[in-house]
Amino acid sequence: MSKVKVGVIGYGTIGMRLADGVAAQEDMELVGVVDVAPTLAVRALHEAGMYYDLYLVDVTRKPQFDELGIPVRGSMDELLEQIDVALDATPGGIGAKNKLLYEKHGVKAVFQGGEKNEIADVFFHGYANYERGIGQDFLKLTSCNTTGLIRAVDALDRLVGVEKVAITIVRRVADPGDTHRGLTNVLQMDTVPNHQAVDLMTIMPHVQATGFLVHTPVTHGHIITIVATPKKSVSKETLMDTFREHPRIRVFRIADGFNSNAALFKYARDLGNKRADMYEIGVWEESWGTSGDDVLFAINIPQEAVTIPETVDGIRAAMEMQTDRLEAVGLTNRYLGMKAGR
Amino acid sequence: MSKVKVGVIGYGTIGMRLADGVAAQEDMELVGVVDVAPTLAVRALHEAGMYYDLYLVDVTRKPQFDELGIPVRGSMDELLEQIDVALDATPGGIGAKNKLLYEKHGVKAVFQGGEKNEIADVFFHGYANYERGIGQDFLKLTSCNTTGLIRAVDALDRLVGVEKVAITIVRRVADPGDTHRGLTNVLQMDTVPNHQAVDLMTIMPHVQATGFLVHTPVTHGHIITIVATPKKSVSKETLMDTFREHPRIRVFRIADGFNSNAALFKYARDLGNKRADMYEIGVWEESWGTSGDDVLFAINIPQEAVTIPETVDGIRAAMEMQTDRLEAVGLTNRYLGMKAGR
Amino acid sequence: MSKVKVGVIGYGTIGMRLADGVAAQEDMELVGVVDVAPTLAVRALHEAGMYYDLYLVDVTRKPQFDELGIPVRGSMDELLEQIDVALDATPGGIGAKNKLLYEKHGVKAVFQGGEKNEIADVFFHGYANYERGIGQDFLKLTSCNTTGLIRAVDALDRLVGVEKVAITIVRRVADPGDTHRGLTNVLQMDTVPNHQAVDLMTIMPHVQATGFLVHTPVTHGHIITIVATPKKSVSKETLMDTFREHPRIRVFRIADGFNSNAALFKYARDLGNKRADMYEIGVWEESWGTSGDDVLFAINIPQEAVTIPETVDGIRAAMEMQTDRLEAVGLTNRYLGMKAGR
Amino acid sequence: MSKVKVGVIGYGTIGMRLADGVAAQEDMELVGVVDVAPTLAVRALHEAGMYYDLYLVDVTRKPQFDELGIPVRGSMDELLEQIDVALDATPGGIGAKNKLLYEKHGVKAVFQGGEKNEIADVFFHGYANYERGIGQDFLKLTSCNTTGLIRAVDALDRLVGVEKVAITIVRRVADPGDTHRGLTNVLQMDTVPNHQAVDLMTIMPHVQATGFLVHTPVTHGHIITIVATPKKSVSKETLMDTFREHPRIRVFRIADGFNSNAALFKYARDLGNKRADMYEIGVWEESWGTSGDDVLFAINIPQEAVTIPETVDGIRAAMEMQTDRLEAVGLTNRYLGMKAGR
Repeated sequence: MSKVKVGVIGYGTIGMRLADGVAAQEDMELVGVVDVAPTLAVRALHEAGMYYDLYLVDVTRKPQFDELGIPVRGSMDELLEQIDVALDATPGGIGAKNKLLYEKHGVKAVFQGGEKNEIADVFFHGYANYERGIGQDFLKLTSCNTTGLIRAVDALDRLVGVEKVAITIVRRVADPGDTHRGLTNVLQMDTVPNHQAVDLMTIMPHVQATGFLVHTPVTHGHIITIVATPKKSVSKETLMDTFREHPRIRVFRIADGFNSNAALFKYARDLGNKRADMYEIGVWEESWGTSGDDVLFAINIPQEAVTIPETVDGIRAAMEMQTDRLEAVGLTNRYLGMKAGR
Repeated sequence: MSKVKVGVIGYGTIGMRLADGVAAQEDMELVGVVDVAPTLAVRALHEAGMYYDLYLVDVTRKPQFDELGIPVRGSMDELLEQIDVALDATPGGIGAKNKLLYEKHGVKAVFQGGEKNEIADVFFHGYANYERGIGQDFLKLTSCNTTGLIRAVDALDRLVGVEKVAITIVRRVADPGDTHRGLTNVLQMDTVPNHQAVDLMTIMPHVQATGFLVHTPVTHGHIITIVATPKKSVSKETLMDTFREHPRIRVFRIADGFNSNAALFKYARDLGNKRADMYEIGVWEESWGTSGDDVLFAINIPQEAVTIPETVDGIRAAMEMQTDRLEAVGLTNRYLGMKAGR
Repeated sequence: MSKVKVGVIGYGTIGMRLADGVAAQEDMELVGVVDVAPTLAVRALHEAGMYYDLYLVDVTRKPQFDELGIPVRGSMDELLEQIDVALDATPGGIGAKNKLLYEKHGVKAVFQGGEKNEIADVFFHGYANYERGIGQDFLKLTSCNTTGLIRAVDALDRLVGVEKVAITIVRRVADPGDTHRGLTNVLQMDTVPNHQAVDLMTIMPHVQATGFLVHTPVTHGHIITIVATPKKSVSKETLMDTFREHPRIRVFRIADGFNSNAALFKYARDLGNKRADMYEIGVWEESWGTSGDDVLFAINIPQEAVTIPETVDGIRAAMEMQTDRLEAVGLTNRYLGMKAGR
Repeated sequence: MSKVKVGVIGYGTIGMRLADGVAAQEDMELVGVVDVAPTLAVRALHEAGMYYDLYLVDVTRKPQFDELGIPVRGSMDELLEQIDVALDATPGGIGAKNKLLYEKHGVKAVFQGGEKNEIADVFFHGYANYERGIGQDFLKLTSCNTTGLIRAVDALDRLVGVEKVAITIVRRVADPGDTHRGLTNVLQMDTVPNHQAVDLMTIMPHVQATGFLVHTPVTHGHIITIVATPKKSVSKETLMDTFREHPRIRVFRIADGFNSNAALFKYARDLGNKRADMYEIGVWEESWGTSGDDVLFAINIPQEAVTIPETVDGIRAAMEMQTDRLEAVGLTNRYLGMKAGR
């Protein structure tokens, strides 16, 4: 079977990780990546051996790359001629313009969460609504927080049903290295409901969701506390086992030293994971609680890598590579090295 | 009527504010404050004109104060001879030792939240259980987060009844100027339930409470998000009006610029409040939400000043100055300049 | 003698402090303050009793203020008709437009550091070049870091002469409450030389200055480390005494607990200073060192209040209230409560 | 030639990186690592495939490891029997106790900067005083800041001679993931001189050094600003070329986006470096400046990895693997992948 040909448009924080994720799929081929300037990410790619071919949005800027000895393979148009699916990881708003190019070249596309929902035929999450993405031309992924949140809520929902959730997102405000955004000594409050709860309801319309969003001056991962009303009662043991068996969820114990978002980041570094990334969300075992019929638990969202698996799922759906949800996500998981039991 | 005579033991972050709070009560007399060393707080008192008399735990250390020109009025024992009530604001654990001295001198005492509950006859909150403190010798105040949380939950409870609450405390980790504790670029997760929820149930045993605690690297005020199950339904307008009419609660709007814990701190500075303090907790109007029958809202806790009013209430209860709850808290409020309608 | 009439244009972080500073001068009258919208600062002024009259840039926005019950005295033009000097504390760039209004109304003006040097007849510092401001129509103050830096370097220069300085500014990146700017977990490096060193040379052309600027994620005061080459040798004792005798410089000891920029902020709060401000820069006694003929010391810059005294000096110079430098700064100091010996 | 056998005592932040560094040396064999408990680092080693053999300080704790399925190879004593050199990366103070064990087993040792100088025969830096370590039994490495600082000063010294340096260390206060130490919204000032300057003079006694230390609430690398008095004049171009040709120094440009300590950390992640580490210190090209005869420049110290190369050099010296300094450091560099020209 010939491999599905994929290009990544926008080689930034998300784009570089999408490229790695696609490159790891044995049934896909990463044809190349596109960017506009010799950013730090492009320079790092070059220093590390140019393991992806680089195409330019604007080839008149090629001399800038020549000067640095960074080889350019061609134009974005040339890349689009070769691929089946574009993963658009450009800054919010650019994707809408790029869509015209994708249509012109007959290329399908998966957009990231920064774009408006209208850009796509379906608002997509690999685990929660894979079927809706099958055969579609344009998919939009949920944002990082929503992607991780839905993983956990979907798992609970498939176990005992979920009536409603009320969440508090304790949000990291920048990525490591960001100097164009940030907060200093501030907890900033957003209006209720946050967009993540609204987005969850778009993907899982049978669940009622709302909640708070507090921006905090840290860089290594969001924390979401969840108060969920299940349709049937569930024990701590059953829920934690369910999470443990989910290949994209890990269960951690504070008592073991996993006491923070930063401890999980450190652990990913110590594992030797590329870019110190973790695809899995974390659930803290000691965050379990009950409040009447409600269950409580808290999760950690590694903002930079969490959407990679579901985006790869999106390729599988759009290209009809698998029509079975579990078969599709299972392949993505296998190639990304995620497995149950952690 | 002669004034009730009060001493403050421990002139630190809380103690200096207790002294100010008592000094503002027209029916109380602040006899003096006690400390052990010429700390920054004591030096500031001296530079600002020694407006409180200073007594020493250990008078053999007086030469240290003499050298700096800081007048010492006497020993802690001498202070205890003159007062009716001691407000103990010493570091956690010291209060238990001091209690022996209070008993010896026949002095009543109000301890801060850092002590164990067993130290006191009653675990006290001026608005929620004033009556239980009347005539008692030893009261223990709730901690800063619990004090503010109970204000809001008690107000809702007196309005429509509260069945249960599930909270997320987004906790500031140090006070401004602290170098002996702190976190850097970390969101640290605690086990569920947090002690504040447990403490709330001690004060309000008819309410079920649980929740999360996340430590964050900021210094200006905790934020608590609350998911409350009321016994009867309540509208946003009614609840916000109730909060607005509560003299120890203020309602703020994000749209007006009150978008963070730090904006409230800045506002207190701009008001010209002494030490840039605010006694009132804040409620964000835009944090209102509903989730099924539950109501959601978020509050801000100014950690350094929030317990002052309830501690002063404690003096009123212990000394039986007022037997009516609303009369007691009303006097405290009036002398501290807090009023309804903000 | 009739008082000099002053208006403050822009009631933000600096403007509100300028108003307080002018109001404290017995030979000046603060006629009013100007702003454009009911900001937090204006709301605080209102809640605290409207102790300054408010004028609007755009009177068509008066209904917004009426709705909040905030009295408006008139238009900016009406204020300008009544005053001798405008203190322009508007955001960078607005001052240049306002200058046309000042010229039209025959009003002198002192601009803050955010404007370009060309806006003014003289780049001004009360202690270092008071004489150059005498009788001028338009003065521009040095920025907060430069103002504090020059205080210290000027003091050393008048003592033994200064040949050159090499500084490192460890810069706070936002004010408390700022959410529109900030850094998170980043030390950001600027190019050498920083503008503060360049500005110092404009004010003190006989000194050679250069240095580094590192932005840090904190809010309470900059720290500047200074390597100075004096013309004659100077002992630690002599220099520290000189600083101690300077009414705008305080000497602190780490050993006493003054171990950080935040400890100084806390101390100002504990002193009960309005807005928790400090006009004086701090010098750490233990930061003294020598390197060959060079002397080392480090200073703290309280960014929000440090330029107030020198701006008031600017009024004195522009209005020819005093022609003697020390007489002028001495009056400013006395009315602001600054004195030698701290 | 048989390989030199090395063990790493203490598998924490430094120890795990020492193990990686030794394992990369083709003329050394990493026999195993020692620790006391199943820390996050040990769990990560296990999850990643137990690529190093683990020995325990206290074998009675083996059941704890058994329960987690973590294989234990033996006791620390058993490891010491097999090795030539121990790299001691235990917490400060433990090394002194371990030294008795090393002596008992006839094992040489290289200690990290946390130990007292007296523990070792020589205070060591691979580039600056390699010769002094040759054949010694016990070496102590300089601390992370001092190691990086000496690299740069030694390079300048070998180029034109250095008479004196005055430095300002803008110090990161914790490592990513640390919750046992940290600062929040504080710049903390230390006394002059800092120990790093004193240590530099121990290693390079012909240079006079002093300077400041400011603790800042960040986690990704220290920044040191340097004011150096060279013995002969040197141009920017020459110095930057010298740094560029130094395999353990990289020159970065702010204009390219390398504008902060965190940008360098991000770059190391993007390079795919294990643990997101960088062995090289960074010099900012735009930090060059002159002040009279002095030259200014600023460096970045990646605190977690910077001492690894010099520690490996220490093995070479102690074991007399090479007697020529440049040959020794050259081999270390080659095996660690560091090279000139960056």
